[in-house]
Amino acid sequence: MARSTLYQQVARELRRAIYSGDLGPGDQLPTEADLMQTHGVSRNTVRLALGELVNEGLVSRTPRRGTIVRDRRPLLMYPQRELAPQPAHSPREAFGYAVSQEGRKPSQVIEVAIVEPPENIATRLELSDGDLTVVRRRLRFVDGQPYNTNDSYFPHAIVADSEIVNPADIVRGANLVLEELGHPQVRVVDDISARMPTPEESRRLELEPGTPVMEYVRVGYDDADVPVRVAVSVLPADKHLIRYELERH
Amino acid sequence: MARSTLYQQVARELRRAIYSGDLGPGDQLPTEADLMQTHGVSRNTVRLALGELVNEGLVSRTPRRGTIVRDRRPLLMYPQRELAPQPAHSPREAFGYAVSQEGRKPSQVIEVAIVEPPENIATRLELSDGDLTVVRRRLRFVDGQPYNTNDSYFPHAIVADSEIVNPADIVRGANLVLEELGHPQVRVVDDISARMPTPEESRRLELEPGTPVMEYVRVGYDDADVPVRVAVSVLPADKHLIRYELERH
Repeated sequence: MARSTLYQQVARELRRAIYSGDLGPGDQLPTEADLMQTHGVSRNTVRLALGELVNEGLVSRTPRRGTIVRDRRPLLMYPQRELAPQPAHSPREAFGYAVSQEGRKPSQVIEVAIVEPPENIATRLELSDGDLTVVRRRLRFVDGQPYNTNDSYFPHAIVADSEIVNPADIVRGANLVLEELGHPQVRVVDDISARMPTPEESRRLELEPGTPVMEYVRVGYDDADVPVRVAVSVLPADKHLIRYELERH
Repeated sequence: MARSTLYQQVARELRRAIYSGDLGPGDQLPTEADLMQTHGVSRNTVRLALGELVNEGLVSRTPRRGTIVRDRRPLLMYPQRELAPQPAHSPREAFGYAVSQEGRKPSQVIEVAIVEPPENIATRLELSDGDLTVVRRRLRFVDGQPYNTNDSYFPHAIVADSEIVNPADIVRGANLVLEELGHPQVRVVDDISARMPTPEESRRLELEPGTPVMEYVRVGYDDADVPVRVAVSVLPADKHLIRYELERH
């Protein structure tokens, strides 16, 4: 009990320094030896305190520089802009747009598969048992670093004969292909939630401990109100901010 | 190393059972003794495995019922509805609306203070050094359980003589008061992000370990494009889902 109180005191003081800005992003925390001396505590107590801050996502441990304050500046995404008329050759996705705006380089790895969809996807696409989907799974990078994933599901019956089944980038965007197939998306519903990542997501996105993810799901409906696309993005919370601008009618 | 592999195997099997739905919300996990026998591992290994699932927010430990799968059904919030014309007497806030729709009972505790705003609030309200704000801090409950917090900041110069400075509920809504003061909010910018909670938030909202929060910040601008309100909501991720519906113009 006494030990628990001690390490929490050390954690609290470090936390305050971070929230107040005394320790900014990229700053090194005092060494374990320094913290032991300043607080008159054991190495174990110091490590428990630092472990707590790691779990809260406030600091990370590096092999060379010791424990440093994490950078919380996020990539600003505007999901509305995908719906607006866009100039030719501009990136058609919130992610590509946001990255380009910052002068950084977006890239992606695409896998395409024909699958029986998970139940939550089948429900959103209003599919019957046995109906197949084409899924385009993308792992997306900024300046070569993994940043987020986007899995887009399309009803196989609609896109079977289109380039959506090819495992290559669609320069003009999958939404334009859907439009050419007679299914323009005139309405979308965006659901945003957050959770801790699965171990698979942590590995794929190289997440540090204590990093939650936002799950952003967009369902697109055509002019007959048929759902024609479900896009699931997994956005590490330390790297993304989602923004909507609304006007009163 | 061997030990780490063992407990991760146990965790993986339990995780699969949860994701597949074999173990649903509220279901009890097998006891520690059962898990020890099934997997042929020590009590320590079982506890490490369960600890991992707690940190991922998948299960919680209860004094009476052992380890149970957490309920992930969230409260569905529609931030757009605050901007739409509303019938008289209907709740004016996304939270109150969402709770009432589910036939549950919203309540809140309100504190009002006149404060120098934190830097991020001052920036969003475009205030000068020394300018004061009125903050209305609300802790909100569903059926008596703490659910989320909402802190709304207003420039003191605008609201000083209004009922916004009174520590009581404003039945017709603070936005209508702002409108009567000559500052109708015609445009809002919503920022959504996620992070681990602060210890203070964990305490106030009675959060379980491994529960991230969404931070939802709305800035309202009047017809002269002056920011007149910043509302910061802290939404425990296991209890909230944010939804936007957009149409293509």
